[in-house]
Amino acid sequence: MNFSSKLLQNAVEEFGRLPGVGKKTALRLVLHLLKQQDAEVARFTSSLNLLKEKIQYCKECYNISDEEVCEICLSVKRDKSTICVVEDTRDVMAIENTNQYQGVYHVLGGLISPMDGIGPSDLKIEGLIQRLRQGAVKEVILALSATMEGDTTIFYLYRKLKEFDVQVSTIARGIAFGGELEYVDEITLGRSILTRVPYERNVG
Amino acid sequence: MNFSSKLLQNAVEEFGRLPGVGKKTALRLVLHLLKQQDAEVARFTSSLNLLKEKIQYCKECYNISDEEVCEICLSVKRDKSTICVVEDTRDVMAIENTNQYQGVYHVLGGLISPMDGIGPSDLKIEGLIQRLRQGAVKEVILALSATMEGDTTIFYLYRKLKEFDVQVSTIARGIAFGGELEYVDEITLGRSILTRVPYERNVG
Repeated sequence: MNFSSKLLQNAVEEFGRLPGVGKKTALRLVLHLLKQQDAEVARFTSSLNLLKEKIQYCKECYNISDEEVCEICLSVKRDKSTICVVEDTRDVMAIENTNQYQGVYHVLGGLISPMDGIGPSDLKIEGLIQRLRQGAVKEVILALSATMEGDTTIFYLYRKLKEFDVQVSTIARGIAFGGELEYVDEITLGRSILTRVPYERNVG
Repeated sequence: MNFSSKLLQNAVEEFGRLPGVGKKTALRLVLHLLKQQDAEVARFTSSLNLLKEKIQYCKECYNISDEEVCEICLSVKRDKSTICVVEDTRDVMAIENTNQYQGVYHVLGGLISPMDGIGPSDLKIEGLIQRLRQGAVKEVILALSATMEGDTTIFYLYRKLKEFDVQVSTIARGIAFGGELEYVDEITLGRSILTRVPYERNVG
């Protein structure tokens, strides 16, 4: 690109480093911000600086939090005997949105991925073990993506958790609600036949 | 969305204000930045702050520039008797990339759009008139989008420029190079038949 301004070029290159943002999109976003009031751009950049400066991770579950311990871990309404293990804070938000879960969480901060050089020691697994050592936990739900990285992490965690007296479960896999059979991939369809459940359970 | 952190929510909302960035994308971008080193986030935000603070608009052509007068207007190689009128700096970059134009530019900063409350007085039209008054300009090329706003602006400018002794032209419209006839829309195809040109001109 032929930039008429080095300042513009720098800002566009910074935006272009964001995941999924190409050069053209970056330019569009920067030009949009350039058209805004000074105060709005200042608010935009300071929201990021503040986030980066002040953000904390809950010392219980490692979820992103404004305080030392997050709201979910602090809440007396949540069942502390059930821990749902997730990859990152987005998964916590997704599960919270379902309104179906009353337990607490444990945020790993990633999945085991040898390709990306992420091993078990890069995840918050030690923190999970420590929570289990305290003895109050009865069930650990592994709510990880159904990908190779997710499965690898589930396998690793399952072996780690075996020594504790807790029920380890994974979230159900199968065809999605509203999904039409002919569009479901073969592996999912095949597995969902093998892992079929009695009708009474499905409608429960 | 159920945010576990107000700081996170603020940053996501600021990103979500950008054009074409939804809540989910905003969250993904913010979490990406949160994972980066402090210095990288600082570089990101300061590139924007610097841009907003230091950016200038060329006092000749109103293109974005780091100096009072942009490189193109300063260049002795450019033909100052031809002015290409464009909507914004992206169009300058696009035309510069073609390597087909040796004249100078005039950046309007938008198009006339009554729907969005943008009238002629919101654009840098007065600056264009002043450049014409200096008398050295022989041709004005209106390189504006082939949209209703573009056509409205072309019509307005054409009437304004009539009083000057300059050739006013618009960029050619027709089917794109490499375009297959069956996929061309009816209006473009119909007009490109009506405005057909002798073969010798097209290959020139």
